Amino acid sequence: MTTPRQRHIVIIGGVAAGMKTACRLRRLDAQAQITVIDRSHNISYGACPLPYYIEGLYDDLSEVRKTPVGVLRDEAFFSKVKGITALTRYDALKIDRDNQQVLVRHLDTGEEQSLNYDQLVMATGNEPILPPLPGIDLDGVLPLKTMEHAARIDELAVNAKHAVIVGGGLIGLEMAEALTERGLQVTLLEMKDQVLATALDFGMASLVHRELVAHGINLRLGEPLLRLEGNGRVARVITANGQYPADLVLVAIGVRPAVKLARDAGLELGPTGAIAVNERMQTSDPAIYAAGDCAESTDRLSGKKVYVPLGSTANKHGRVAANNLCGQAEAFPGILGSLAVRVFNLNVGRTGLTSEDAHLLGLDPVSIIAPSPDIAHVFPGNKPIVIKLTADRSSRKVLGAQIVGPGVMDKRIDIVATLLALGGTVDQLANLDLCYAPPYASAMDALLQAANALRNKLDGLAESLSPCEVKELFDKGEDFIFLDVRAPAEFEEVRIAGGTLVPLGALRNKLQDLPKDRLIVPFCKISLRGYEAQIILQQAGFTKVKYMEGGIAAWPYALEK
Amino acid sequence: MTTPRQRHIVIIGGVAAGMKTACRLRRLDAQAQITVIDRSHNISYGACPLPYYIEGLYDDLSEVRKTPVGVLRDEAFFSKVKGITALTRYDALKIDRDNQQVLVRHLDTGEEQSLNYDQLVMATGNEPILPPLPGIDLDGVLPLKTMEHAARIDELAVNAKHAVIVGGGLIGLEMAEALTERGLQVTLLEMKDQVLATALDFGMASLVHRELVAHGINLRLGEPLLRLEGNGRVARVITANGQYPADLVLVAIGVRPAVKLARDAGLELGPTGAIAVNERMQTSDPAIYAAGDCAESTDRLSGKKVYVPLGSTANKHGRVAANNLCGQAEAFPGILGSLAVRVFNLNVGRTGLTSEDAHLLGLDPVSIIAPSPDIAHVFPGNKPIVIKLTADRSSRKVLGAQIVGPGVMDKRIDIVATLLALGGTVDQLANLDLCYAPPYASAMDALLQAANALRNKLDGLAESLSPCEVKELFDKGEDFIFLDVRAPAEFEEVRIAGGTLVPLGALRNKLQDLPKDRLIVPFCKISLRGYEAQIILQQAGFTKVKYMEGGIAAWPYALEK
Repeated sequence: MTTPRQRHIVIIGGVAAGMKTACRLRRLDAQAQITVIDRSHNISYGACPLPYYIEGLYDDLSEVRKTPVGVLRDEAFFSKVKGITALTRYDALKIDRDNQQVLVRHLDTGEEQSLNYDQLVMATGNEPILPPLPGIDLDGVLPLKTMEHAARIDELAVNAKHAVIVGGGLIGLEMAEALTERGLQVTLLEMKDQVLATALDFGMASLVHRELVAHGINLRLGEPLLRLEGNGRVARVITANGQYPADLVLVAIGVRPAVKLARDAGLELGPTGAIAVNERMQTSDPAIYAAGDCAESTDRLSGKKVYVPLGSTANKHGRVAANNLCGQAEAFPGILGSLAVRVFNLNVGRTGLTSEDAHLLGLDPVSIIAPSPDIAHVFPGNKPIVIKLTADRSSRKVLGAQIVGPGVMDKRIDIVATLLALGGTVDQLANLDLCYAPPYASAMDALLQAANALRNKLDGLAESLSPCEVKELFDKGEDFIFLDVRAPAEFEEVRIAGGTLVPLGALRNKLQDLPKDRLIVPFCKISLRGYEAQIILQQAGFTKVKYMEGGIAAWPYALEK
Repeated sequence: MTTPRQRHIVIIGGVAAGMKTACRLRRLDAQAQITVIDRSHNISYGACPLPYYIEGLYDDLSEVRKTPVGVLRDEAFFSKVKGITALTRYDALKIDRDNQQVLVRHLDTGEEQSLNYDQLVMATGNEPILPPLPGIDLDGVLPLKTMEHAARIDELAVNAKHAVIVGGGLIGLEMAEALTERGLQVTLLEMKDQVLATALDFGMASLVHRELVAHGINLRLGEPLLRLEGNGRVARVITANGQYPADLVLVAIGVRPAVKLARDAGLELGPTGAIAVNERMQTSDPAIYAAGDCAESTDRLSGKKVYVPLGSTANKHGRVAANNLCGQAEAFPGILGSLAVRVFNLNVGRTGLTSEDAHLLGLDPVSIIAPSPDIAHVFPGNKPIVIKLTADRSSRKVLGAQIVGPGVMDKRIDIVATLLALGGTVDQLANLDLCYAPPYASAMDALLQAANALRNKLDGLAESLSPCEVKELFDKGEDFIFLDVRAPAEFEEVRIAGGTLVPLGALRNKLQDLPKDRLIVPFCKISLRGYEAQIILQQAGFTKVKYMEGGIAAWPYALEK
């Protein structure tokens, strides 16, 4: 674990991956000199909680730098507790790989010095993408990456009335909530026709759209930003379709890996633009490792290099890098693109491949949309979730899941993520022995119900259409019977235009009223009864029956009330 | 899917497994005649939510028989919607396997008839164990299994002041909460020295004990019930140690499989006393299947036959039985003993093997106790959980987990249950790509932190003692330094007797004050700093250092305030 002479490990970047690497290194190696370089005094902060500071959920911004018992993770903490030297306010200018030196400059004094290293860790993180549009430099236009950004947005939010958020990704959505809660009128601009475009399918994203609109967000999809205007300070944004007042513009269209230093040093970059690493987090230079948001990951399912910068991955990268730096061979197995985001009252999450991803890999993905209460439906406080689950037709391996709803999402995403990591099938999923009591789940958990619904589809027992596919039938003017099999009282309350009411309990007696030569699409609130109706009709000799998956709960379009 | 002539499938028992089997059968087979026999009109009810009815969380007892949209699952529902005949108020008296007939008697008219079957499904459920003690037949002494029991307990609770619950299992604990919330003074008698004796280790159960006592439960452990006294109506219970007033006595010492009918018919019973079935849920008679609480299951990890009657398993049994009855070969893979129970503000759950189970199987289990906040600690509403995670030393396969705490437990138990089903290792667990955002988890989830702590132990990096082992050292009068490395303010607030305060930040400067020849046991609030202290001491040449796992958060004994 220790080396004969005192080796020096230099880590460039002192946030998640850098500090994780440093701390793990120290635990594995008593002797090594460990130096972390960072531009800011604000090292070892959690960036993910910053939107919630702006929302007002905690009052002291430095909380994001504290341990669970309230100790500030500053230079003195790392020195005294961890035996790690943190050189803050230092910029790493250049890596001299031949001589194993990093040239650094103190940002306040301008003083430069060279640090010798035995091994180097790149933990330079990401940099927010700021599109080169007119007005992007105006005051009041900024991304959210650092504590300084958070403090500035918090300050601006005090007097701002109108905010424009550019980008419907994780930060854009979190900030849409945060700024709305702060009392601002928020416009959310997204170039694509949906939010979370790389994470969710359109139908699932549409449920998020509905939530945003319900909370007063001015949601502008498919609307690119053209320029920002104002007199020194931003006043409005101009898009392809119009203009919106803005006292504050959050630019959240994405981040890129911060790789200038690595590229200048001749380290290999991967196809994603991030620093290429092997599974031990080692770069093309064996003396240099990379971890966190500057490094690429491998997708566990596709085997492809991907760039999904997240704090959860950064911590794992750091531990693996440190282990390998200390002779403990460990391979980082890669990621699944697991994500979670709260959007007002919705929990939104996903893991694994989308259908599109799977098709590109030559797989034959089959998906189901299955809504359900998150816990026993008699238990107070139960809330719905809509699950979209995808498996490969021939191998029956689960490929991914997306979940949106007010109910508990993260548990089910994590179960699927665990299954994906181990290559489980939808049949294995359906028979998992999950823990059960009414405060936690239904006797047959929502996820297992979704798995069974998908098995029915794979086995040819269920034939179905997604809500998007049904919408297409309407749009094309297809002739079909859209059979609402709910109770009259439910129909009275809310319904989809074009539906014909035949309550499920009456269906067996109304078979003679239905045509056998036309497509019948039964559905209900969540389409358990819709599926039941399909079975009844098929068993009565109707051959053109496909129930609509997800029912009204997953219908992302307008409803009649 | 269909048979040439109309076959008749008779199902004895119309609750979870029976009705699941019936409904799935109908979906797979349009023609079959399906008859379900039950003694009660109250078919297809959920028993698990009954304690919460008594607690007052919902007002209408029939909710447990309704679909999520409020339709009562009565005889008419099964007939009209499902095409299933439910013969309620019928008792199945005898199975004539040679002639494939079931003799039934109507409980109101006394009329008997024989039903021919092509295939038979035993779904006779369980029966609560009532110990043959004096007074067990007194009015006011009853188990909780049926809706009728729930209604009667609810009625008794209106005027009762004192309740005694016999048995600290799932129902006993749920009812301790329910009756306390109803304003009764509750005494909980448990023969063993801990609640949930087959599910949790003593240390974890002790956290539940603390919660029960904190909510006013008179918890009597290791105290067997001797008799019940009263004049027609129960008035008090007498134990080996004393007597307790009781207007209501809930007997919840366990259930046994209801197998009289099966035994009388000569069907093979397994080592657990439940009906023996193969993995297709087929009994020793190929024409007879069994599902739910009357049937045994196989433990996925040990391969042994086990009896763990739960609604979650009953539903899966029913589906597998129906599939096999319709020619869809499906093997039920068995269970993991996954359990969940809410005890006041605690969430309590477990899955897999305990250390004791694992030892009996010849494995070499290594466990860690690791407390953590359930979500990002800066996020409001985060709550602690204590995780006990066990893996096999040589294979590193995860063997089981127990979690107790106010924070989110079920997500982590279900992740472990998924991993167990697929044979994953603790190393695979530690690198899972779980979904992350501050409202849902820490960047490194509590469970992954526990996995890493266990890896450190398996790898010889961490040496540790459980709180129970430390207590033993104290009890034996061992000479060791119990090193509390928290901050002075934390020490002031709460501490364990016998601890010596040396805050972690000061430790590197106080090494000369500590002896190298005595055992040092560092700990903190959750023992992350305790582990850190162990590393610092070991790296300084101290060889006798073992940190106390779980810290104060997992210390199940008295604390000084």
